[in-house]
Amino acid sequence: MIGNLLMPELVELIHRRDFKGLREILCGFAPADIAEIFVDLPPDDEAVMLRLLPRELAAEVFENLPIEDQEKTLHALGNEQVAQILNDISPDDRTRLLEELPAAATQKLLDLLNPEERKIAKQLLGYPEKSVGRQMSPHYVAIQQNWTVAEVLAELRKQEHKRDVINQIYVTDSKGRLVDFVRLRSIVVVPPQTSVLEILENQKISLHATDDQETAVAAFRKYDVTMIPVVDSNDVLVGVVTVDDILDVAEREATEDIQKLGGVAALDAPYLKTTIFQMVKKRAPWLAILFVGEMLTSVTMQNYGGEVQKIVALSFFMPLILSCGGNTGSQATSLIIRAMAVRDVLLSDWWRVFRRELAGGLLLGGILAVIGAVRVLLWQWFHFWDYGSHYSTFALVIGVSLIGVVLWGSLVGAMLPFLLRLVKLDPAVCSAPFVATLVDVTGLVIYFNVALWLLPRSLFQ
Amino acid sequence: MIGNLLMPELVELIHRRDFKGLREILCGFAPADIAEIFVDLPPDDEAVMLRLLPRELAAEVFENLPIEDQEKTLHALGNEQVAQILNDISPDDRTRLLEELPAAATQKLLDLLNPEERKIAKQLLGYPEKSVGRQMSPHYVAIQQNWTVAEVLAELRKQEHKRDVINQIYVTDSKGRLVDFVRLRSIVVVPPQTSVLEILENQKISLHATDDQETAVAAFRKYDVTMIPVVDSNDVLVGVVTVDDILDVAEREATEDIQKLGGVAALDAPYLKTTIFQMVKKRAPWLAILFVGEMLTSVTMQNYGGEVQKIVALSFFMPLILSCGGNTGSQATSLIIRAMAVRDVLLSDWWRVFRRELAGGLLLGGILAVIGAVRVLLWQWFHFWDYGSHYSTFALVIGVSLIGVVLWGSLVGAMLPFLLRLVKLDPAVCSAPFVATLVDVTGLVIYFNVALWLLPRSLFQ
Repeated sequence: MIGNLLMPELVELIHRRDFKGLREILCGFAPADIAEIFVDLPPDDEAVMLRLLPRELAAEVFENLPIEDQEKTLHALGNEQVAQILNDISPDDRTRLLEELPAAATQKLLDLLNPEERKIAKQLLGYPEKSVGRQMSPHYVAIQQNWTVAEVLAELRKQEHKRDVINQIYVTDSKGRLVDFVRLRSIVVVPPQTSVLEILENQKISLHATDDQETAVAAFRKYDVTMIPVVDSNDVLVGVVTVDDILDVAEREATEDIQKLGGVAALDAPYLKTTIFQMVKKRAPWLAILFVGEMLTSVTMQNYGGEVQKIVALSFFMPLILSCGGNTGSQATSLIIRAMAVRDVLLSDWWRVFRRELAGGLLLGGILAVIGAVRVLLWQWFHFWDYGSHYSTFALVIGVSLIGVVLWGSLVGAMLPFLLRLVKLDPAVCSAPFVATLVDVTGLVIYFNVALWLLPRSLFQ
Repeated sequence: MIGNLLMPELVELIHRRDFKGLREILCGFAPADIAEIFVDLPPDDEAVMLRLLPRELAAEVFENLPIEDQEKTLHALGNEQVAQILNDISPDDRTRLLEELPAAATQKLLDLLNPEERKIAKQLLGYPEKSVGRQMSPHYVAIQQNWTVAEVLAELRKQEHKRDVINQIYVTDSKGRLVDFVRLRSIVVVPPQTSVLEILENQKISLHATDDQETAVAAFRKYDVTMIPVVDSNDVLVGVVTVDDILDVAEREATEDIQKLGGVAALDAPYLKTTIFQMVKKRAPWLAILFVGEMLTSVTMQNYGGEVQKIVALSFFMPLILSCGGNTGSQATSLIIRAMAVRDVLLSDWWRVFRRELAGGLLLGGILAVIGAVRVLLWQWFHFWDYGSHYSTFALVIGVSLIGVVLWGSLVGAMLPFLLRLVKLDPAVCSAPFVATLVDVTGLVIYFNVALWLLPRSLFQ
């Protein structure tokens, strides 16, 4: 929004090379707002503008750019500026950029870092993808428990902690192991001679650097805190994760889950930033797989070709019955996948879920069966259509098939995510269309077999 | 986890009425962990345990209980204890509880509050549902810009700010309007005689109390901050929202969107906590609506009954073709609904989205058309099935129908969320099954008309 309003003026200033004017306007905004303005500029102009900003602000603006824009800007900047920005930005944002780049580019950028930052960057990149370690910042303040508040304040003043998170100050033992923490607010309100021991929070919530990022999301949801310290396998404090990064993780995971549930491979960028070809590439494979899977329906149908020719009315209700299976399957699978993502349902709950879906599926199937059977009877009685002399048996076929298909849809939709998780696959792969396709093929078999079983033999001869 | 390990020991202590032992064990845990233990206890025991805890801890544990458990516990506690807890818990958590209760119960509880807290509670409940006001806490520290750091520190020490958020200290003018803020960390590291003016952050990010909570989620994602001040329509500071509450909001919204996309009305509680009947109530209405909608397919099919009887092979490919429309529709709708939720796509982007889906749909349809047509030709050439002398025209029918259906699915799936948002409905109502149903009916019409148009007249006579 701000970008749109200012854009003509900014472009004008760039053309006039009025760098002082540009700098003045930009410095009045929050880094995230400046980044929003930059995104709409050509990469070369982005680089020009970034060079204009005071060093620290430039780093903060850069952190707020989307990864693609960060890459483009780096290309447009000279080595010296790239080095400056990379050394200045916060380590967790740098990790996010470096992990996206090809290995060769990452190496080249690592070489531009000063030894200290290079060590940090390499350490963070050493943690597994999607682990807490990749999201953490190694900039925190650690103190000893035998210190006084005055000593802590002296320590805080000693260093330039501008980029650090210091609302929580961590207390470690002589080996660097996390013992507890004190809040900055406690430090502020007690007399300077107070011992740190007196204001300890007595809470040891921590994450492991190798924990999955979803564990971090769950921990932040549970404890309602804004930061959590991260320890290594020896309990040694190695960093801190803040909830704002975790909010991004949670939102990204939800986006991926929704896209996968819809039968799309997770997009790497926002919808409108993805080119049409990239989008087709994300959608076509699943569509093709589902299509090939769904081809089984034609094979199945061919087996019942004779029956369909004898009783065309059977084909009228085919899409209706199949769609019910797909719909209940889609309901069950979305419920379970989300419940798994937020840890409401664990792998060990499968049997409870199975029983619930068994009962629920029968009930839901029963409700639809009544509607379906009544529909056939009404059409017959009001002469909208003539289903022949066996119309009441036909209504029964529709009802029984619906119970079978809906029950089957519920169970498949609910159990598949468990199966996928059991074999260590992402349960969200089990998309709604995937379940619908599976249920379609079996739904057809259920439908035609119920028909063959209930309808009098004579009709098929 | 902690709960499971300790449970036998705790139950034993409750039975032995060893309250001192219980209190000692419990006080060693974080409030969220204690809450987790409580949830598995019967409500009466929950109340017993809550009474044991030190007053402040009891309030924090209560805040961490799920709403249902909060209600049950309140019933089991005496009026005096209820009053104590309600006065102690943080105002935003209290709002969340009060808004869930029936009006009579809310009124009864409001009467238990002391005048100050009652005023706060009523003010917060006065904001619209799902607004930022409902999530905010009125406990913040406000200062004047002509103060020195020493005065700010004195102010902080003066009051018991234990429950307040003070990492950001807000600077207001004489009328209480938000001017800027200073960070607690800045205050700590400068000499006491420094003026507040020298350490202002020069950033005025704020939310309006009537803003939608999704606006808050977007703001926290954008600015990467842990708290944002909230102002009323006159720019007067009225409270502060913290990112931990917003993380909960974001997760809840994502859950609702996923459930709605799956064709389920949003559940009020976690999956396993919802009774089977409640779940059926959330699922049956949509299933029934979709079922009635899908009935149109049988009506449509009846119109083509004659054609199906003449060319049974047409019915073999029906589920295949319909499912393709449903699948692409489901893809498009999940992409757009999520993009809308995270504000990547706005209502005004509809035309861009339309053009993208037009191009994408044609491409995707083309890919499936080739696979589908080749399938027919292969079956014919390898004598798996005989589609008659016009088999190549039949392959063409399949291909052309697929392009039509897939294109249609993409466009309907992408445009429906815009239409719903335009008429002020929740776009997520447009679930994947809903789109699939819509596309099924029109898909049939496309398919049969393509067949009637391309296949020689003679076949239908």
